[in-house]
Amino acid sequence: MAHNKAWTLASYPTGWVTEENFKLLESPVPSPKDGEVLVKNLWLSLDPYMRGRMSQAKSYARGVEIGEVITGETVGEVLESNHPGFKHGDKVLTGQRMGWQLYGCMKGEVLTMVDAARAPLSCYLGCLGMPGLTAYFGMKEIGAPKAGETVVVSAASGAVGSVVGQLAKAWGCRAVGIAGGQAKCDYVVKELGFDACVDYKAGNLFRDLKAACPKGVDVSFENVGGEVFDTVLRLMNVFSRIIVCGMISDYNATKPYELKNIRSVLVNRIRMQGMIVFDWHQRYPEARNELAGMLQQRKLKYRESVAEGLESAPQAFIGLLKGRNFGKQLIKLA
Amino acid sequence: MAHNKAWTLASYPTGWVTEENFKLLESPVPSPKDGEVLVKNLWLSLDPYMRGRMSQAKSYARGVEIGEVITGETVGEVLESNHPGFKHGDKVLTGQRMGWQLYGCMKGEVLTMVDAARAPLSCYLGCLGMPGLTAYFGMKEIGAPKAGETVVVSAASGAVGSVVGQLAKAWGCRAVGIAGGQAKCDYVVKELGFDACVDYKAGNLFRDLKAACPKGVDVSFENVGGEVFDTVLRLMNVFSRIIVCGMISDYNATKPYELKNIRSVLVNRIRMQGMIVFDWHQRYPEARNELAGMLQQRKLKYRESVAEGLESAPQAFIGLLKGRNFGKQLIKLA
Repeated sequence: MAHNKAWTLASYPTGWVTEENFKLLESPVPSPKDGEVLVKNLWLSLDPYMRGRMSQAKSYARGVEIGEVITGETVGEVLESNHPGFKHGDKVLTGQRMGWQLYGCMKGEVLTMVDAARAPLSCYLGCLGMPGLTAYFGMKEIGAPKAGETVVVSAASGAVGSVVGQLAKAWGCRAVGIAGGQAKCDYVVKELGFDACVDYKAGNLFRDLKAACPKGVDVSFENVGGEVFDTVLRLMNVFSRIIVCGMISDYNATKPYELKNIRSVLVNRIRMQGMIVFDWHQRYPEARNELAGMLQQRKLKYRESVAEGLESAPQAFIGLLKGRNFGKQLIKLA
Repeated sequence: MAHNKAWTLASYPTGWVTEENFKLLESPVPSPKDGEVLVKNLWLSLDPYMRGRMSQAKSYARGVEIGEVITGETVGEVLESNHPGFKHGDKVLTGQRMGWQLYGCMKGEVLTMVDAARAPLSCYLGCLGMPGLTAYFGMKEIGAPKAGETVVVSAASGAVGSVVGQLAKAWGCRAVGIAGGQAKCDYVVKELGFDACVDYKAGNLFRDLKAACPKGVDVSFENVGGEVFDTVLRLMNVFSRIIVCGMISDYNATKPYELKNIRSVLVNRIRMQGMIVFDWHQRYPEARNELAGMLQQRKLKYRESVAEGLESAPQAFIGLLKGRNFGKQLIKLA
């Protein structure tokens, strides 16, 4: 039988992540204990939140220790099961503790059976996975836009942002994206159907965003933080809402961005709320059903950026943090 | 009959307000038109929000124009009434448009009758007035602390802060104040009954506040902004709430404070909301009744800083912005 391979944390990054922060280890494929399932991973998801785990700073989850496998969700196939809920050949979504490896054993309780007939397997890591669920609960429970309102989302071509804007359109809102580069902006408007998309790398973000939001901003879904966040704050309407979902621009900074326009929260009576999708984990099936319905009706489009083989993961992750991916970043493992 | 006197805006301040920004004008006492009431003002309230009106920057209310009377609420006595709801001798609370003057005519609809038997007249500008109502709705509708939680309030000896902490105690919470100087801190703990109060002018605010909040902070009522706000952000618990009520530290700054710890909103899933008490104006009677009940049961204490005569208003206001007042700042007009 094949050997397992796993990317482990070699050192904590300071500032930008580099390949030296990772170490590839080989080991025998493990055997499942009682209640466990052995999974052969087919797809690995790369997500910006993983940068937060490669740190010793306080966060909402325990960080990765030196020598541990890097955090990450996968979709895989059951090879061997000691849990009554799973059998050989089942397709499953694993928890984040599976991580960057080819094979792994997990308790049956933390696995989610997926239906390969309903959507391609990789979708369970993207628009039907954590990114899609994040968009869904952030919009539904915090942003709660009404028809006719304007929704702005940063990292609009990404796995979360693309779902945010498509939900906004499905709910009758004006959807305005922020993305880096003309190609991403074109995709967001022409393929995903947003009303407008502003390129933060060209022109003047404040002026361009203001032009794209003639009635101001009612809901801002913030994935980026930093200067983009600060600029959107200047355009928020009275009684508007901000979903604070990610601050990728800060994850690699050695010094945090210093926010200048917080007074807008007071003047405009903004409600701003931080979110972690896991807080709604008991409602995942509801959200997954709704998103799968949109997908089947072709109201939910997505794009994937696929790198081949586990070996490519560190480079692909570094690219993701630098915004080089275009759509949901995945590693095809088999 | 006496002449009216009124403080008008002579020029917009840049940075700190100075006496040169004000001009005292004399004029005849006006006569009430149909539906109007002529009020002789007895007490004038000075509040930090007025600094925001002395500006051309966008805010939640129209600013004061050059030559206009400075915004401000008063409690006064009806001298003449052309409105069926009021008669000579009635005591009334006026709207903010009454402003810094001795006499004024207002439409009956915007006046609130006050009961001098229930509380001293000046209370209707303090703990039963806008500051008290601000504390009440901010705590009840945004902070919503549960018994046993820790509530932190800045400007704790002030008109809003003192009510916030006493509400926290009445609801079974740990109340921790932040104030400037030992005398204010002693008052907050010994007179108002807070559990602790940290002097932001001495020691190390982060260390001292952390020691005063051994279980972290569940609700922060922010009146000050700037560095105090930034420091409290570092101590917020998961699922905590921040009421953004005032940013007095920014009102006089020519450059806004740059916030460093906004990431705490994400990591701790904080809900942060800006508030203006006027948004709850239809529920003022409910709040005033509840606070008056606490006052009568001696569960709501207050302190006033009284300057004599309309002429003293600019100096008293400048002192308020610099934190020189101790308790609710009032001008006794008659």
